[in-house]
Amino acid sequence: MIAVDANGADQGAGAVAEGARRSGERVLLFGPAAKLGETGPVIEVVDAPTTITAADEPARAARSLPEASIVQAARAVASGRAEALVSAGTTGGTLAASLLNIKRAHGIHRPALAALLPIPGGPTLLLDCGANVEVRPEHLVQFAYMGAALMASVYGRERPRVGLLSVGEEPEKGTPDVLEAHARLARADSGAAFAFTGNVEGFDLPAAAVDVLVTDGFTGNVALKVLEGTAKTVTAAIRGAIRSGAISTVGGLLVRGCLGRLRDELDPEAVGGAILLGLRKPVVVAHGSFGPDGIASAIGLARRAVDERMVERVHAALREGGALRERSAGAASVVPDS
Amino acid sequence: MIAVDANGADQGAGAVAEGARRSGERVLLFGPAAKLGETGPVIEVVDAPTTITAADEPARAARSLPEASIVQAARAVASGRAEALVSAGTTGGTLAASLLNIKRAHGIHRPALAALLPIPGGPTLLLDCGANVEVRPEHLVQFAYMGAALMASVYGRERPRVGLLSVGEEPEKGTPDVLEAHARLARADSGAAFAFTGNVEGFDLPAAAVDVLVTDGFTGNVALKVLEGTAKTVTAAIRGAIRSGAISTVGGLLVRGCLGRLRDELDPEAVGGAILLGLRKPVVVAHGSFGPDGIASAIGLARRAVDERMVERVHAALREGGALRERSAGAASVVPDS
Repeated sequence: MIAVDANGADQGAGAVAEGARRSGERVLLFGPAAKLGETGPVIEVVDAPTTITAADEPARAARSLPEASIVQAARAVASGRAEALVSAGTTGGTLAASLLNIKRAHGIHRPALAALLPIPGGPTLLLDCGANVEVRPEHLVQFAYMGAALMASVYGRERPRVGLLSVGEEPEKGTPDVLEAHARLARADSGAAFAFTGNVEGFDLPAAAVDVLVTDGFTGNVALKVLEGTAKTVTAAIRGAIRSGAISTVGGLLVRGCLGRLRDELDPEAVGGAILLGLRKPVVVAHGSFGPDGIASAIGLARRAVDERMVERVHAALREGGALRERSAGAASVVPDS
Repeated sequence: MIAVDANGADQGAGAVAEGARRSGERVLLFGPAAKLGETGPVIEVVDAPTTITAADEPARAARSLPEASIVQAARAVASGRAEALVSAGTTGGTLAASLLNIKRAHGIHRPALAALLPIPGGPTLLLDCGANVEVRPEHLVQFAYMGAALMASVYGRERPRVGLLSVGEEPEKGTPDVLEAHARLARADSGAAFAFTGNVEGFDLPAAAVDVLVTDGFTGNVALKVLEGTAKTVTAAIRGAIRSGAISTVGGLLVRGCLGRLRDELDPEAVGGAILLGLRKPVVVAHGSFGPDGIASAIGLARRAVDERMVERVHAALREGGALRERSAGAASVVPDS
């Protein structure tokens, strides 16, 4: 059973409900019952019209609005009623409700938002894409283990190649924190967990020869959005030129076919959204812009994360690499996991 | 007279010499005389075969290699023999040689590397693109004044619109330093210098409705390179599809024409490179990949910066906005400017 928050999506709660239907999975759907339409036999609806919006301060809203759909959905996962969470609402609200209810896994400094880059020749996983605007070197090291374990468990990549996003390929290029993370990753006993291949520059992001690319949540958020925005701008310019001219010719059709394939490759909906790593259950953050097919992909991704025991494998990789946080470093508030 | 360093360009010193010829400007050319070919009457050659490479630690190399071409070229500008500097060598080497010889202008915290984004519908100036991997809020504020003064003086933009690159449009989105810079820019008495329009997200970078986009040198470097890399990847995919199919059709030709225009718009060579702002003389950093036309553009850009009194106008904008560094804050090593 996957808990899905139907509030907060750009296309409305009805589009999320339709996505739940299309997914074919058993879904526990939280949202305004009146707007969800016919949901069919495998979908259970919990009427929850209250939303956490982008205007709310996420941590405060997650505490003060227990009736909000994302909070109820996260509680359903925490209690075991559902196995994973999918949200198309704000990333901040989803992160806050998840931290409060599902909680960080033992030994995790910070959860990270991991997104598959919608690029030709991918997939490359970029993390953090925005959960933490500031990070320390030990956080970046954990991101490497977590991202690699995700690629191994959910996408079947053996010993994924891990790169570190920086301003030059040389190990001495970057901020002091990036330099320190580079040094730690280079000497990490990562064994079968991953192979660290060094720094990756922004120029190589769209065709990066790595499976996992590690960065802080500020840079990662900017990089992901620049990539999406640039791809959209360039394809729109070409599409406009075709529309204005000889669209009936064979050449135009060929190019339109190519643009269609590119659009599919660059399509965030096909990827299914981003995964919040470092929590005790899988949490998938769908794009706010997703329509029903994107939501269905996101639910499928959550299902795969459950079936492939992603959370357990992320934890095992961190433990075997000696990258878990020491209990003394402030983990007192974290309940030991099973 | 423009001082040009002919060393360090990917296409060799000969290509830089050819670019100097094509620029039509009076040039003082530093490089290996044997490789510069026929230079014509308006180009004066100084034989300087020594180069600072990417493998050198820039600050140390700029001090220990006084015979290096970039150091000699910077000294020629400092002494007044030339009015501005153009380099296609490493950014680090150019910055180090410039700081040591041309020196920071009075009241400047940090020079910033400012690049016009090669995007359709531009130009938008992005700074810092890599001179400072870490910055403080007061540095970002100075970048806003400096970038706006460049756009006003060299590109004729009246009261340029200035945005701040962040992870959301809301003022409370970003790192603590970005939040602080946002607050300072929002309450700055920028008058005619610029209009602060708030945060800009990565998604809007390729079509940003701002003239100047301010960020730290780490994020700016990554963002610029992701934009260039993505544009190249997408156009290459489309070009490949056309080449494999009906290239002789009208449709294919139309699209090829469109790609050609896009390539021109996205072409860093046409832009002429990036400008190091905050020094006592104009310094232009050409792309290492530039051929003769790119070098000629860079020299033309340096000429325009001199003619439009860019350095003086940058300084006046900072002074009028009260954004100059206080003398007590460690400016002792900076010789007062005229």
